[in-house]
Amino acid sequence: MINKPFLHTILSPKLLNLYNLTNSIVVIIDVFRATSTITTALYNGAIKVIPVEAVDKCISIGNSTPNSITAGERDGKIIEGLSHGNSPTEYPKSFIEGKTLVLTTTNGTKLLHMALQNGAAEIVIGSFLNLNNICNYLVQQNKDVYLGCSAWKDRFNLEDTLFAGAVIHTIKNHFTIHCDASLMAEEMYALHKNDMLSFIKNTTHWHRLASYGLEKDLEYCVTENIAPVLPVYNYEKGYIESVF
Amino acid sequence: MINKPFLHTILSPKLLNLYNLTNSIVVIIDVFRATSTITTALYNGAIKVIPVEAVDKCISIGNSTPNSITAGERDGKIIEGLSHGNSPTEYPKSFIEGKTLVLTTTNGTKLLHMALQNGAAEIVIGSFLNLNNICNYLVQQNKDVYLGCSAWKDRFNLEDTLFAGAVIHTIKNHFTIHCDASLMAEEMYALHKNDMLSFIKNTTHWHRLASYGLEKDLEYCVTENIAPVLPVYNYEKGYIESVF
Repeated sequence: MINKPFLHTILSPKLLNLYNLTNSIVVIIDVFRATSTITTALYNGAIKVIPVEAVDKCISIGNSTPNSITAGERDGKIIEGLSHGNSPTEYPKSFIEGKTLVLTTTNGTKLLHMALQNGAAEIVIGSFLNLNNICNYLVQQNKDVYLGCSAWKDRFNLEDTLFAGAVIHTIKNHFTIHCDASLMAEEMYALHKNDMLSFIKNTTHWHRLASYGLEKDLEYCVTENIAPVLPVYNYEKGYIESVF
Repeated sequence: MINKPFLHTILSPKLLNLYNLTNSIVVIIDVFRATSTITTALYNGAIKVIPVEAVDKCISIGNSTPNSITAGERDGKIIEGLSHGNSPTEYPKSFIEGKTLVLTTTNGTKLLHMALQNGAAEIVIGSFLNLNNICNYLVQQNKDVYLGCSAWKDRFNLEDTLFAGAVIHTIKNHFTIHCDASLMAEEMYALHKNDMLSFIKNTTHWHRLASYGLEKDLEYCVTENIAPVLPVYNYEKGYIESVF
């Protein structure tokens, strides 16, 4: 019998340091909206996405990078001093193709930097928009996997958990899973995969962002496989690029 | 319209400090097994339960308390130097009536002390064994409620989440709930309330404890309302007592 690699789900960045990420792949999940925006920008032809933690660093990297866009949000709103926000709808092909996106967000880019600091061997960017690409890659790599939910200011959220559940639902037979968070996430996804759009409207993050008029954004962000790319973090260069 | 108090579910002790517990009731949940053991001991006539964090303190309090039992576990096993373990079956009426239980456990007593340090106004001890007593009390008090899951070494676990879900399922109409963890917990409980015993056997904690031969313990711990008491932490005296 071949030993299958392990798969765990981490429900909040606060729980990341409970796990040893060495030699593992970490999937960064921030469905509303950082990882959906990154996936969309790369699908629409962005050359790369540079994830940065702080706003001032975002601005300075933007100033020194030719043909770049600075973008980001804090608490769901565009930040003063940056040119764009964290909405995937802001990055159609006609606008983003050939450009570099320099992005800072409340939850998603923070988790990516935590995973780096905690020794993750590989980091990929997951969203419903590129679900199958993520699943295929994880199966091919044959390494331990951590599905990292960005959460909302470290509080558990459902949209990231549901995406973790979608991954598990698809590839669980390829992994050893002794993890209650994964068991729960898969059950929640199985329960709601056929009513995702109506169910997601019950979540706290939906209410928060819908109050800013972002319903269309959110509906887009729970649509499976409409931006089929594989965004991978390039350790040497410090940016995210699509490898196919 | 009367403003209903808030209810939140905290899935791990690591997430406790994201919330302001002041003026709130915290329900300490450690289904496998600390809060089930405390509930059982009080139901069977223990005068009080003194929860302590450290083993040496457990022994010294035991030595200075007349008619007391020292008890506890680390990683599911009895600790050397203590006279009893963390199994509810060890505390029948014939043994525990009239005695004081001095208890230290891996997860449950740790969370109780964290809730104290974080300013909780009231602390009660919840388990499936006293579900309805907890629910009735929370509704009567009309305060904000935090359902605190002890988890397993800070990792999410299902049995505590399912109990939180059981409370929410019972009393949600009395509270304002904007909390994805609560929404998830209630759905998981509703999904499994009729197959709890078979479902709980899928959890990681079941596998861990069943490997020590504790299946009967665990089956007991998911039985609703068979030890109907209300264990409340007495701040002045530093112990848990049953108020009815």
